[in-house]
Amino acid sequence: MYRIGVDIGGTTVKAGVVACAGGEYKILGSAALPARREDPDANVRVIAETARLACESAGLPFEKMEGVGVDTPGFVDSGTGVILYACNLGMSAYPLGDRLSRILGVPVRLANDANAAALGEARAGAARGCKNLAVVTLGTGVGGGILIDGKIYDGANSYGGEIGHMVIVRGGEPCGCGRKGCFEAYVSATALIRQTKAAMRADKSSAMWRLAGGLARVSGKTAFEGLRLGDAAAAQVVGAYIGYLATGLANLSHILQPERILLGGGVSGAGGQLLEPLRKAFDKELCGGVRCELGLCALGNNAGIIGAACL
Amino acid sequence: MYRIGVDIGGTTVKAGVVACAGGEYKILGSAALPARREDPDANVRVIAETARLACESAGLPFEKMEGVGVDTPGFVDSGTGVILYACNLGMSAYPLGDRLSRILGVPVRLANDANAAALGEARAGAARGCKNLAVVTLGTGVGGGILIDGKIYDGANSYGGEIGHMVIVRGGEPCGCGRKGCFEAYVSATALIRQTKAAMRADKSSAMWRLAGGLARVSGKTAFEGLRLGDAAAAQVVGAYIGYLATGLANLSHILQPERILLGGGVSGAGGQLLEPLRKAFDKELCGGVRCELGLCALGNNAGIIGAACL
Repeated sequence: MYRIGVDIGGTTVKAGVVACAGGEYKILGSAALPARREDPDANVRVIAETARLACESAGLPFEKMEGVGVDTPGFVDSGTGVILYACNLGMSAYPLGDRLSRILGVPVRLANDANAAALGEARAGAARGCKNLAVVTLGTGVGGGILIDGKIYDGANSYGGEIGHMVIVRGGEPCGCGRKGCFEAYVSATALIRQTKAAMRADKSSAMWRLAGGLARVSGKTAFEGLRLGDAAAAQVVGAYIGYLATGLANLSHILQPERILLGGGVSGAGGQLLEPLRKAFDKELCGGVRCELGLCALGNNAGIIGAACL
Repeated sequence: MYRIGVDIGGTTVKAGVVACAGGEYKILGSAALPARREDPDANVRVIAETARLACESAGLPFEKMEGVGVDTPGFVDSGTGVILYACNLGMSAYPLGDRLSRILGVPVRLANDANAAALGEARAGAARGCKNLAVVTLGTGVGGGILIDGKIYDGANSYGGEIGHMVIVRGGEPCGCGRKGCFEAYVSATALIRQTKAAMRADKSSAMWRLAGGLARVSGKTAFEGLRLGDAAAAQVVGAYIGYLATGLANLSHILQPERILLGGGVSGAGGQLLEPLRKAFDKELCGGVRCELGLCALGNNAGIIGAACL
């Protein structure tokens, strides 16, 4: 049984041929092409071409493919295969499923990228066998993918799972969405960079100046690198960041009580340096019988491709 | 088709015989007995007796009953029929379903009260036909009932839906659960009373002093009554209260995107005085395509009985 999973980003379209046998998922071949964000119809042809190239790379004829799953940023109506709004793709109310299916001649299904990643991790990654799962991606923004009873849950109108826009500090930091004090405004990589720069400005002797080579080159890794060197300012940044993260994840646990929450996205690359202290802070914030395991996504970029193939 | 719905509280056990035909639910007879909180086994006999009395009141023999549904406060494992922990019932790891089923000779199902209310409102109340619904009860505490795809969702281990313990003001008001800044610490009736008293202390000329007849007699209604008289301090209390409520409900919408959120519990008795300004504040807090209707529960205490009968 072969399926193609496609991951569409703002700059690159990636596709993989996924084989599923006996509950094991394997990527047999893959391909990537530059996206054509400026022209949605041309971008659909790029997606089709990437899918075909992935088949070639796997040494399999396209006819052996049962279907194509696509994971995209933004909001997706998975029932109709319409991209409701995806700023990074330049698509709005765009019937991607239909268009792509007409070119390729196989069924096409769509899902939001965080949701596809959650499905991928549940089938083949760090949450195998989990039926109730949340994936929280800590990147430029904060994304959320939710599985309930083994299925993607995206709410009554496909706009659910917007975990990043949960207010945790009412009246706090302004967020791009217009609210103040959103989770995203404290725990995205963007927020971590802002917090790191503020700490550097306040402490000209911090080792982070040397590590980053100047404010303009600060990344989501700078504070974690500083912490490894024992830098006090870095430790404070990471400590505060983990506190905010624990609060938001505990909120999510109280509402949804997933079996597990997995962290993905750039900041999760800090691994144990993030996860170990986070677990302690998180457990302290859980009331009564609320329990939830925290972990890191295991599949990286492949989660979306495998998840999409499972749609 | 007849079923019995039982609502167990800390002081009273209520039961109703519910007839369901053609999607319409009707309570044919009901009964209530004092609960025996101090002795769980005796309380089970009270529950059974109340169920039988409800049948008598409906003029129907118990043999015509298909089953019994019980809604209880606290945490419930609906799969096994065990009350995990219900402080108000003095029950912990108590196999209520089994015990009651043995006495009555019919199948017994259990649900948490907020969840049963959500099911009742979706079947026969203010959310008929809604498949994705949240009920938020504004009482002594803040309860949450969630329906996803028409079914009660209570998380991986039955502790989900704890909407009241979502932090909206990190480091804010202490909550009984141990966290700080929980939604419950701002929007429960208890919190509203605290806020009302603080406003009265700060404004000795407020009409709320006369309305309540002293601090000790302040209730969740005092500020709304003061607002009707044009009292400035009362208006400020209600305005701030509605602001907190809008923030928490908007958080819930961003995560779950239910079709509708219904408010129940004592404070919801303020009706339009609460709902109209709340809708405006709530809509302002929704990002992008997130949409959700707000309403009031329609079935009052009967929601639990009808919901339990639908289990």
